[in-house]
Amino acid sequence: MVLCDAGNSYFHFYYSGKVWKVQPEKLERDEVLLPLYYISVNPKSTKKLLEIFPEAINLSPYMMLNTAYKGLGADRIAACLGIGDGVIVDAGSAITVDVMQCDIHLGGFILPGLATYSKMYRAISSALETNLNLTIELNAIPQNTRDAVSYGALKSILLMIEGSAKNKKLYFTGGDGKFLARFFPDAIHDDSLVFKGMMRAITEVSERGISIDYSRNKGFS
Amino acid sequence: MVLCDAGNSYFHFYYSGKVWKVQPEKLERDEVLLPLYYISVNPKSTKKLLEIFPEAINLSPYMMLNTAYKGLGADRIAACLGIGDGVIVDAGSAITVDVMQCDIHLGGFILPGLATYSKMYRAISSALETNLNLTIELNAIPQNTRDAVSYGALKSILLMIEGSAKNKKLYFTGGDGKFLARFFPDAIHDDSLVFKGMMRAITEVSERGISIDYSRNKGFS
Repeated sequence: MVLCDAGNSYFHFYYSGKVWKVQPEKLERDEVLLPLYYISVNPKSTKKLLEIFPEAINLSPYMMLNTAYKGLGADRIAACLGIGDGVIVDAGSAITVDVMQCDIHLGGFILPGLATYSKMYRAISSALETNLNLTIELNAIPQNTRDAVSYGALKSILLMIEGSAKNKKLYFTGGDGKFLARFFPDAIHDDSLVFKGMMRAITEVSERGISIDYSRNKGFS
Repeated sequence: MVLCDAGNSYFHFYYSGKVWKVQPEKLERDEVLLPLYYISVNPKSTKKLLEIFPEAINLSPYMMLNTAYKGLGADRIAACLGIGDGVIVDAGSAITVDVMQCDIHLGGFILPGLATYSKMYRAISSALETNLNLTIELNAIPQNTRDAVSYGALKSILLMIEGSAKNKKLYFTGGDGKFLARFFPDAIHDDSLVFKGMMRAITEVSERGISIDYSRNKGFS
């Protein structure tokens, strides 16, 4: 059984503990990847995946998360199911932060990702066009433009995560997850959080004796 | 005597307590605006201003700020001179935060402005395209996408300002200055901070018996 998280930029795959990513244009049919269960946050990615794997099964309709949040992406739902309790930081082009308590999703918020901050500064003025200095000293007030924008981006992200964590366990995933996790002692970096949630959904559904097939793909992509 | 702060988007003018802004393409020569003292953070704006007011005098070479910061914009220098002690938040397309103590500039940092956050979220994904909800409840975890991005943008800006203020007086200026000042009791909103600094520079220079003229414009635009 292979799992796929179809994102905005990449298809992330999971098979027996291994995680790898594939660019949409490089996706090729391979029978080894079947049966294939997927979630998607991007209609184009869904279309592309189903063109190559028409029998891929959309897990979204089978993932039940206890939440009042409207419009939570399938990847965030899966990550929440993957931990049950704690704070999940998924750091990619956007940084989503979701708070879980006793299997209940209490809500979440969204920050721009580190790379997006760089783009933002560049868009404001060429004077702010610089690669972020991610080794910046966060306890000293910056003394030049590069440090000033780096400090602004990195420290605001860290303050927001810190404020949401309180006494909860912090889980980091996504492209910048490993880097951001370093700033929090006892934080856990886990690139397979989303897939753990998908696994849990499959297990719970089969325990309830419901059969999962791709007849329900339509309308859930 | 008229003062002009030539920014990236507008020319801001000051005359006897009044502040107004003019779009570069709408700038017209008016003898009433002479003598005209200016600072600029944008070479194009400087060129435009000097085409219409060749006798405008660049104040930058006369503004002396005690700082170790490399590349501080003329508008930030002026605002710092304008308060002498406290924290200045200039909230426009970028939000600059500068810390002054006993007429010494201790450093500063830069955040994207509120409008820039909106643009950023939109650039990440159409799913995040929304007008920020600036009346968001900042003490509750968001329960929908619009609130999630609004909370991310606004709260990170407020946390960064709060962290830099400590026991210092907060001064807000710029397009979003009035709005952001509302979140801080005892904060001061003052749209003429930059001009107060320019005034101070003119006064101090004349006290030292130095004559200011436009022969020094070259190289300082």
